[in-house]
Amino acid sequence: MGIVLGANQYGKAEVRMVHVDKSTPTHVITDLNVTTQLRGDLAAAHLVGDNSAVLPTDTQKNTVYAFARQYGVGTPEDFALLLGRHFVNSVPEITGARIAIDAYSWDRITVGGVEQPTSFVRGSGERRTTIVQLDGDDFWVVSGLSDLVVLKTDGSEFVGFPKDQYTTLPEETERILATSVTARWRYSDEAAYSEIYAPIRKTLIETFSTTYSKALQQTLYAMGSAVLEQFSEVAEIRLSMPNKHHYVWNMEPYGLDNPYIVFQAGDRPYGLIEAVVSKDDAPPAGRAWDGVPGFV
Amino acid sequence: MGIVLGANQYGKAEVRMVHVDKSTPTHVITDLNVTTQLRGDLAAAHLVGDNSAVLPTDTQKNTVYAFARQYGVGTPEDFALLLGRHFVNSVPEITGARIAIDAYSWDRITVGGVEQPTSFVRGSGERRTTIVQLDGDDFWVVSGLSDLVVLKTDGSEFVGFPKDQYTTLPEETERILATSVTARWRYSDEAAYSEIYAPIRKTLIETFSTTYSKALQQTLYAMGSAVLEQFSEVAEIRLSMPNKHHYVWNMEPYGLDNPYIVFQAGDRPYGLIEAVVSKDDAPPAGRAWDGVPGFV
Amino acid sequence: MGIVLGANQYGKAEVRMVHVDKSTPTHVITDLNVTTQLRGDLAAAHLVGDNSAVLPTDTQKNTVYAFARQYGVGTPEDFALLLGRHFVNSVPEITGARIAIDAYSWDRITVGGVEQPTSFVRGSGERRTTIVQLDGDDFWVVSGLSDLVVLKTDGSEFVGFPKDQYTTLPEETERILATSVTARWRYSDEAAYSEIYAPIRKTLIETFSTTYSKALQQTLYAMGSAVLEQFSEVAEIRLSMPNKHHYVWNMEPYGLDNPYIVFQAGDRPYGLIEAVVSKDDAPPAGRAWDGVPGFV
Amino acid sequence: MGIVLGANQYGKAEVRMVHVDKSTPTHVITDLNVTTQLRGDLAAAHLVGDNSAVLPTDTQKNTVYAFARQYGVGTPEDFALLLGRHFVNSVPEITGARIAIDAYSWDRITVGGVEQPTSFVRGSGERRTTIVQLDGDDFWVVSGLSDLVVLKTDGSEFVGFPKDQYTTLPEETERILATSVTARWRYSDEAAYSEIYAPIRKTLIETFSTTYSKALQQTLYAMGSAVLEQFSEVAEIRLSMPNKHHYVWNMEPYGLDNPYIVFQAGDRPYGLIEAVVSKDDAPPAGRAWDGVPGFV
Repeated sequence: MGIVLGANQYGKAEVRMVHVDKSTPTHVITDLNVTTQLRGDLAAAHLVGDNSAVLPTDTQKNTVYAFARQYGVGTPEDFALLLGRHFVNSVPEITGARIAIDAYSWDRITVGGVEQPTSFVRGSGERRTTIVQLDGDDFWVVSGLSDLVVLKTDGSEFVGFPKDQYTTLPEETERILATSVTARWRYSDEAAYSEIYAPIRKTLIETFSTTYSKALQQTLYAMGSAVLEQFSEVAEIRLSMPNKHHYVWNMEPYGLDNPYIVFQAGDRPYGLIEAVVSKDDAPPAGRAWDGVPGFV
Repeated sequence: MGIVLGANQYGKAEVRMVHVDKSTPTHVITDLNVTTQLRGDLAAAHLVGDNSAVLPTDTQKNTVYAFARQYGVGTPEDFALLLGRHFVNSVPEITGARIAIDAYSWDRITVGGVEQPTSFVRGSGERRTTIVQLDGDDFWVVSGLSDLVVLKTDGSEFVGFPKDQYTTLPEETERILATSVTARWRYSDEAAYSEIYAPIRKTLIETFSTTYSKALQQTLYAMGSAVLEQFSEVAEIRLSMPNKHHYVWNMEPYGLDNPYIVFQAGDRPYGLIEAVVSKDDAPPAGRAWDGVPGFV
Repeated sequence: MGIVLGANQYGKAEVRMVHVDKSTPTHVITDLNVTTQLRGDLAAAHLVGDNSAVLPTDTQKNTVYAFARQYGVGTPEDFALLLGRHFVNSVPEITGARIAIDAYSWDRITVGGVEQPTSFVRGSGERRTTIVQLDGDDFWVVSGLSDLVVLKTDGSEFVGFPKDQYTTLPEETERILATSVTARWRYSDEAAYSEIYAPIRKTLIETFSTTYSKALQQTLYAMGSAVLEQFSEVAEIRLSMPNKHHYVWNMEPYGLDNPYIVFQAGDRPYGLIEAVVSKDDAPPAGRAWDGVPGFV
Repeated sequence: MGIVLGANQYGKAEVRMVHVDKSTPTHVITDLNVTTQLRGDLAAAHLVGDNSAVLPTDTQKNTVYAFARQYGVGTPEDFALLLGRHFVNSVPEITGARIAIDAYSWDRITVGGVEQPTSFVRGSGERRTTIVQLDGDDFWVVSGLSDLVVLKTDGSEFVGFPKDQYTTLPEETERILATSVTARWRYSDEAAYSEIYAPIRKTLIETFSTTYSKALQQTLYAMGSAVLEQFSEVAEIRLSMPNKHHYVWNMEPYGLDNPYIVFQAGDRPYGLIEAVVSKDDAPPAGRAWDGVPGFV
């Protein structure tokens, strides 16, 4: 028996970088959380503490700030690729990288109905996400969003499920359906990342809203399918959707009815529905999904 | 020496209640986090475990749900008063109450530009808050908001401060100013809670935006003053505003300039500025601020 | 009507400072979270942005690190007093301060049963706390602890409570009692902060363990009383104890009994019990409790 | 082009179940967070909302509680296998499962040096973890731990790394090394889960303590190797170790030295080191690592 080093990576997680484009009087703010991870022939560091190939994580962090200054930021996908390519070419032993970026949104403050050029209010907790994998000259781009919380007070049921000895859930033809969407998609073609994000997000939200839901699985699949149907560039989408339970509160003990009017919002436990929806002619995924959290 | 029981209270914290008004096809959702605390002659429970005056916290929770069904919810302030009065009259020994409610916001989903009647997307992490104190027939209402995150990329400086041997901060005539506003205000007169909240919030945001800031203290005072000037019903406002630091990243070591373009968003530590702004003819505060967290 | 500035304070929150005493080969680690807040005649900053009295929060942070180097740390109480006195004497307009310190615990790693001199494993999430208020030459010291989570599987009941139309809770003569203790106490005399903390903590835990509980209020009072009885230096103790509910899971629908064996640990809502226990000859509290969160 | 459903799973996340073994006067508490996920032929639910194969997540939750009552809990691994096998045999369409369990620790309270039989104090935030995958009759067991926070004040350096134009990090021969260990391991043979956990944990901690660290990578590999060398049942171990930076505070501006005595504990960003260490004759991993978060 021998002991061997397997897959490994290292980097700097959660570099909080804010870039302000002041090239016009109307400032543009980009607020990112950047995680860089490098891969390659790093056996010497692990086995004998030889750091000659270990570009410091501190340097990786500095590079995030410096590149934002030198090149601007653009889309998270393009910025991730820019960083990844730089790192893959930085030290001979480094041959791959994984760059993950979360982007936070800011809305412009309006005064008297007029959007202000330099003041902002924080948007929702939702994040735009990207994960870019690089392996030598190859690369894979995954775009997505996280923590998009949506809720329906109508058009949701859950019936026809199997019952066993432990089943107490009643069939319900009326319920609140609520979820916090995490979606990630990869592309079959070059995509205009700056243009495609907002329409995909809109498609996800609209499909959630307009689909009569017999199961959260059905809603999930409808959301994924709608994106694939409407966006030729998208090859595959993965969705992770917790069922944020809203329990109709039983008021019979107090002699009150409760026709789906008053609910308890639950924290834990929660349902969790995850699925991959893809095109049957999608190109191979390659390393696109390596280590992507929260999916099957 | 004897040992004595001093002030005390007990109740149920964080009852997560969601009410859907389905009286018209356009559903109205109210999403609350309710904390009830009762006070009175509760010495027997503390000293000998006699619970004859201890209305269970479980019952308090049930009452929150039942009242939402029986009376609807309305404004957080009115719902808190309704609950508080009920509890003060529930058991002879209970003579006071403190009801705190946080309200979460949901925006309607639009499809094809049309607002949908029964589907929603979660708004920002900002919360509308209220704390109502009751003591017999007396009551005090405090309204507020929390986690309103705002940021300016221009119009903020910090100069002219004293320097001692530990001071390294340079004077800055250009910086990002960002804060997460917690504001709470009390009233001198009857106020229409359903109408006054949005304009006060708007005043806070607009004043943040339009005030040239020589210090976060100055911005805070301007925000408080603006509310007092524009709303005759408001007697006093208390503001707690962390300085969410955005550090301009030093790029000199890499031979780059950085004219306030690229920043590091800091987590900890953060500045924390808190102040009371009031009218000189404000009525006495009474118990309005008892135990209100996060203020001087 | 005029608008006036009321109470105010400003400072640096959550300065994470770690001090390692290397004066002997057995290193001693002190891990603190320090919040400094200064008070005084700061009207000029608020009204016109004149910062001539505003010792920067950045300087306050530097001072925390510098003082740890210059004077060592000692107990949180002594370090807070040291910092507070410095700030009160720093700028003429600054006349008061409030220094809050949380201390995190580290246990020594043992190898082959031997405590290692320079390696540590993080203890529980519990924190030792202190809040020191200073006003000119006067000062008030509050010590405490937070997030001390304790649980009993026996010796806890809740019966004899009033029932109203919304009451569904059954009387229970057997239940899990669990809470996360926050305790804060002030002193009547000079106290040896380095010696008194551990015994007080031990008294709280032991009293929780050995008290048969007819109500969490009774347990709280017993814990507070025990501290007052055993420590002559302690004048008053304030306890905030959430009832971390463990619901016995109803298995009747599956034809199983459940004699208090299997429980659901609840997140929200939770009961919240708070009370002050003091000596009848305690000296006046002065400003000791100003703005202390989480208490009545 | 057609649209196809790919891999999918659904279940109940974070079922918080506490079991108290009262078979002897010395109660034994087991505190778990259980997540169940089921897989199989669930196309009908996704495509047309046919729930005839969808064993409700609510039933899955009930089963967790019921099984704890019927069979007791034992080790997390055994309880996960018990649950998983039940679900795989529950509905014909369900052919696989993934059961993840986190276990929280409680220490006995001592009074007068004597361990109490029914009262407990919460241990550290560290969790024992397991993830069991089942596919028909096949199964794979991964054990582990998470949030084990360790720190060294001596015996750690970082030198000899490559420098590029963005590198500002100085070489350091003395630093604090701190990390929060997440470790997961799989087995080559039947293992006695109840006996092997504590020694593996001890090996990880001791190796961290006794290894002179030239790089966190080296420490990680040493920790993994030590487990593989000492435990013949373990085939592979995966470690994810953030570098919890402690920055030596620069006091030169105040005229003070700081020979690695006073540090700033950083929150973000943090280094992140991840690697797989395995035996060269380890059996194939099969589905053991499918969807396991936080690893390469």
